Amino acid sequence: MLVILKPDATAEDLERVLGRIESLGGAAEVHRPRQILLAVRGADINPQTLVAMSGVETVQPSAPGYWLASRRAHPEDTVVRVRGRSVGGDHPPVLIAGPCAVETEDQLMRSAEAALEAGAQMLRGGAYKPRTSPYSFQGLGEEGLAMLARVRERLGVPIVTEMRDAATLELFQQYDMDVIQIGARNMQNYEILRRAGKAGRPVLLKRGPATSVEEWLMAAEYVLLAGNPDVILCERGVLPPASVATRYQLDIAAIPIVRRLSHLPVIADPSHAAGARDLVVPLAQAAIAAGAQGLLVEVHAEPCQALCDGRQALEPGQARALMENLRRHGYVPEPAPAASGLVGARVIDWRPS
Amino acid sequence: MLVILKPDATAEDLERVLGRIESLGGAAEVHRPRQILLAVRGADINPQTLVAMSGVETVQPSAPGYWLASRRAHPEDTVVRVRGRSVGGDHPPVLIAGPCAVETEDQLMRSAEAALEAGAQMLRGGAYKPRTSPYSFQGLGEEGLAMLARVRERLGVPIVTEMRDAATLELFQQYDMDVIQIGARNMQNYEILRRAGKAGRPVLLKRGPATSVEEWLMAAEYVLLAGNPDVILCERGVLPPASVATRYQLDIAAIPIVRRLSHLPVIADPSHAAGARDLVVPLAQAAIAAGAQGLLVEVHAEPCQALCDGRQALEPGQARALMENLRRHGYVPEPAPAASGLVGARVIDWRPS
Amino acid sequence: MLVILKPDATAEDLERVLGRIESLGGAAEVHRPRQILLAVRGADINPQTLVAMSGVETVQPSAPGYWLASRRAHPEDTVVRVRGRSVGGDHPPVLIAGPCAVETEDQLMRSAEAALEAGAQMLRGGAYKPRTSPYSFQGLGEEGLAMLARVRERLGVPIVTEMRDAATLELFQQYDMDVIQIGARNMQNYEILRRAGKAGRPVLLKRGPATSVEEWLMAAEYVLLAGNPDVILCERGVLPPASVATRYQLDIAAIPIVRRLSHLPVIADPSHAAGARDLVVPLAQAAIAAGAQGLLVEVHAEPCQALCDGRQALEPGQARALMENLRRHGYVPEPAPAASGLVGARVIDWRPS
Amino acid sequence: MLVILKPDATAEDLERVLGRIESLGGAAEVHRPRQILLAVRGADINPQTLVAMSGVETVQPSAPGYWLASRRAHPEDTVVRVRGRSVGGDHPPVLIAGPCAVETEDQLMRSAEAALEAGAQMLRGGAYKPRTSPYSFQGLGEEGLAMLARVRERLGVPIVTEMRDAATLELFQQYDMDVIQIGARNMQNYEILRRAGKAGRPVLLKRGPATSVEEWLMAAEYVLLAGNPDVILCERGVLPPASVATRYQLDIAAIPIVRRLSHLPVIADPSHAAGARDLVVPLAQAAIAAGAQGLLVEVHAEPCQALCDGRQALEPGQARALMENLRRHGYVPEPAPAASGLVGARVIDWRPS
Repeated sequence: MLVILKPDATAEDLERVLGRIESLGGAAEVHRPRQILLAVRGADINPQTLVAMSGVETVQPSAPGYWLASRRAHPEDTVVRVRGRSVGGDHPPVLIAGPCAVETEDQLMRSAEAALEAGAQMLRGGAYKPRTSPYSFQGLGEEGLAMLARVRERLGVPIVTEMRDAATLELFQQYDMDVIQIGARNMQNYEILRRAGKAGRPVLLKRGPATSVEEWLMAAEYVLLAGNPDVILCERGVLPPASVATRYQLDIAAIPIVRRLSHLPVIADPSHAAGARDLVVPLAQAAIAAGAQGLLVEVHAEPCQALCDGRQALEPGQARALMENLRRHGYVPEPAPAASGLVGARVIDWRPS
Repeated sequence: MLVILKPDATAEDLERVLGRIESLGGAAEVHRPRQILLAVRGADINPQTLVAMSGVETVQPSAPGYWLASRRAHPEDTVVRVRGRSVGGDHPPVLIAGPCAVETEDQLMRSAEAALEAGAQMLRGGAYKPRTSPYSFQGLGEEGLAMLARVRERLGVPIVTEMRDAATLELFQQYDMDVIQIGARNMQNYEILRRAGKAGRPVLLKRGPATSVEEWLMAAEYVLLAGNPDVILCERGVLPPASVATRYQLDIAAIPIVRRLSHLPVIADPSHAAGARDLVVPLAQAAIAAGAQGLLVEVHAEPCQALCDGRQALEPGQARALMENLRRHGYVPEPAPAASGLVGARVIDWRPS
Repeated sequence: MLVILKPDATAEDLERVLGRIESLGGAAEVHRPRQILLAVRGADINPQTLVAMSGVETVQPSAPGYWLASRRAHPEDTVVRVRGRSVGGDHPPVLIAGPCAVETEDQLMRSAEAALEAGAQMLRGGAYKPRTSPYSFQGLGEEGLAMLARVRERLGVPIVTEMRDAATLELFQQYDMDVIQIGARNMQNYEILRRAGKAGRPVLLKRGPATSVEEWLMAAEYVLLAGNPDVILCERGVLPPASVATRYQLDIAAIPIVRRLSHLPVIADPSHAAGARDLVVPLAQAAIAAGAQGLLVEVHAEPCQALCDGRQALEPGQARALMENLRRHGYVPEPAPAASGLVGARVIDWRPS
Repeated sequence: MLVILKPDATAEDLERVLGRIESLGGAAEVHRPRQILLAVRGADINPQTLVAMSGVETVQPSAPGYWLASRRAHPEDTVVRVRGRSVGGDHPPVLIAGPCAVETEDQLMRSAEAALEAGAQMLRGGAYKPRTSPYSFQGLGEEGLAMLARVRERLGVPIVTEMRDAATLELFQQYDMDVIQIGARNMQNYEILRRAGKAGRPVLLKRGPATSVEEWLMAAEYVLLAGNPDVILCERGVLPPASVATRYQLDIAAIPIVRRLSHLPVIADPSHAAGARDLVVPLAQAAIAAGAQGLLVEVHAEPCQALCDGRQALEPGQARALMENLRRHGYVPEPAPAASGLVGARVIDWRPS
């Protein structure tokens, strides 16, 4: 059971509610994301005995495991703003594109230009790569963060990059990475979730391949509860049955389901879901048609040279064709004449302090 | 190994090829869908020794288990024509809609009108229902076929209806059902597939929930090999992992994959994939955006009264909204002013003899 | 809702119950497997109004879709007897072994001898093979049934063989095949289930790879309801996730679950579950340890020559080692000295008329 | 490509091999778990050009992503020793039992006694619980470690307990926890894997529910490569299809597969796989029959009072019955008369320094 106190509840209100819970044989853990939340355990307490108390806003008797992430707690769509770009609500779908991994400054720069030419609003690229084998390329680490920061400076595009290890958060803050991505394997890495809740910047949270939508929202709750309201959810495919041809299987229905259950923006990553370049474009279109509020897509200047996941990276021409198609079907607006292409993207658009 | 003879191969050509195969220690089974196909077994024969023989068109050394269904055999898209409607190729997506089961003539008539008003070009409805439990409603049987025939007469709309048992084919022919549907549970019922190959009318073949795209195309091959070239494939969702919320999981990527591997038209059934009304519309849009050439959707005049699968049937207003949305995004053309709505649909458009 | 009448319910009892259901706005379908069962639909009838009526034994308000297959209907284990062999109850696990397909009489005879030497009590072998591709070997058909009958005559071993098409039942009866197997792809082929219910001999019903235990029991209910009480259930693996290495995945937990829900005997087919010879033995042992009442195992005199599924067939020595291991762990009794091996198996043990 | 140098390779050998790789356009990362391993990238180098060089032991051209964990690198079974208990090789299966979470010292003590009476050789219990919702009981933290250490002192039983966050390793060392468990959600948490490689004590690594056996062995490789040779693998069930009744699905075939691919001991956790008490015993027996070298089982003195996962915890009597059954089938030896039960377990058996 969750007890949510009013924003103006007093210390006395809290004390009285805690006292009542204790007197009924229960115990409560106090959380203070903004308002006070009490997670009550250890007794069958009738919600009616608490809901009428001074300072209590509402009681969730059979909490689904998340509250801050739910639409009941926050009926309007959350819009996450990143250096002037907006993700969520009624904003047109955002394209986040770039290479899987940062390999060299030249590769990053050329891939970023290709992404921006296609219409990307943010650049993705990994400096710390979670790799199944310890013998695979693990990313450039801090050097990669530095390259991302320099490319941002030159192109004026915000950066989305993955934090693989909780211990590296300070580096991400030092290089002022704009959005911290939490990968699918780390969706239930609670140490990372809690740290991301203190990161002071938006978090892009991928869904784990074996988890339900509810479990995903509970993972987001860890971040929200630690004080960070800016979570972007990213569906990237679930574990498929052996009879399905793709590497993962995009759970298209999860998009409208999340939008009903939660106010957080939800985007899709068709690259990891497909695992094959030629399927990325149809999956991307399907995700947008089903209501996704953005796309996270791998684009590489020379996919066949990529050190990581080259098979699924779009070639620059494919990225442009994807956006062209989304425009033709009215999902993405035509760019204003003066601001089109790379020129527009170079306009530096600083994040408000 | 498959050996495909030329359309004008002679009896002597066939005899010589069979002789060569035998002399090399193999055996061949002869199929005659149109051209002659030889399925060769029992020896490692070098394809080069056969490909140069008189009358041989091509040899498929490691046949994937289907040939007639493959794009290599038939590079152009197949367009299936049903009483003037066209499914496949570059034709706009076709909407096949109607109730899960035929229950009464009134229910069928009202649901058909709702479907046509929304823009449906064909009517679906089951007279023989495959039901998990023997105690569930099994369909009206022959009486249902008669009702479907009468509604077709009144509304001029072609009928798509499921054949559950191979033994009932003659009834489907007697009532001149326009398209014979083979359900997901029967996708590998070879007795039904072979009979459908002799049915003299198009077949709509659903994908089984545990089967791969290749296995599905091999099932289609049974129909094609028996002489029926008019197969419409229908993706209706695969078995999901326990972590996914929908009844089945629409395999969106299968749509572009099938279109690459095969020339047969492919449509999607979002109703069975979703199992819940509110998810049908986003899944339908996603399927079309990914390249589906039509939709098979359950629409019921009064879903909450349905004897079968009412939870997933669209209400009439939802069906109209679905088509409206597809038109707004340019997937389906605006109806010509004079031919819009039910009036246009009533124009009887007989199937060419 | 199911209403079960007493064995001695009179025609008047039935009429009165039907009248009451009708007067309450419902309709009932009458089934007469042995006792009378009424499947009631179309109204919310309070079970209490029926349970007290004369002739009513019990009412199942929210029937799970099966009754005759349930342990509530039949608390004791069913033991299926086949020419003196017993499957189910507290009988030691039965071994049914033999080649995937009947290929030649010599291959069948030698594989049968290998199976019997290992300790098999019944011989398996397919004359009608359900094959994914129409170009694969489809089995010898009637000739295969004749070979099976002749091998039975020589070795005195009962035969288990698959019926792929409902239309062939009479041939199975003519050659007096002892147990009719219904394959996984046909588990929801209702035409076959209904015919098998009239076959006059035991039915071995495999679980479909995408179905739940409940759906499997409902499939068995079709057979039982048509009048055949002798159903042996066979778990053969479910559709695995892409991350699992085996062809299918043996659902070990389904074995104790079925034994709790149903009185029917349940055996396991580790050959199809594994898809690889070396995994058959550990899976077979696991199935027995979990409570399986028998095994269906592919054994081939020369697996590498098999026309079908040779990769998963045990070599004769592996089959002997499997049984030796089951004896060592006390799951299968040591053979009586005089009756061991092939000699004992040759003792012809006719099925009681 | 992996290049493995001989144990006595010299610094000059290493330099020459690195030089050769560089001259061929590649780059190599040097690992020194015991012997030197070179992970080579960036060029197609013919293995023959390296294998003959001085100091090179072997070259793995297409490394599967793990080497130290493979049976090729280490043909004999690894036996992990924990305070005198042995896991792996031909040792009888080990039982690790205890409550899901440490709740109170009394609960822990009573559950530990129940586990030992049943025959457990190690005690499990979680002080840091990874929980899907931030509002669920997260474990007692350091207090729980202290309780585990005190119970070990009183009962002389080694402790297996989960490390949820990499940052807590020092606490686990300070309380001298005997075996560090890495849970399924953390199987690809590389920060934890690398730290566990430096922990100086055995690691029990659970398989993630969406991962393959190969991915699991690559996760183990991270631990081994960091210098810790004592890894126990634990199969705990994979993500099931929606048609399967259990919470996860024990991948029985993975047990013999792992034993073929790797030298590391493999045990099974039937409690999490089943998610229901009554299925734990048949799954445990199946796992042992398939070759598991131990069991990790939840046992709680009063399961219905448990704060976490009580539905799947065995009651004390069930735990005794499980071991009794394993003894009856010869999988576990009968206890020596004097050493049976709790008395024997109290004999403190210090880990050799």
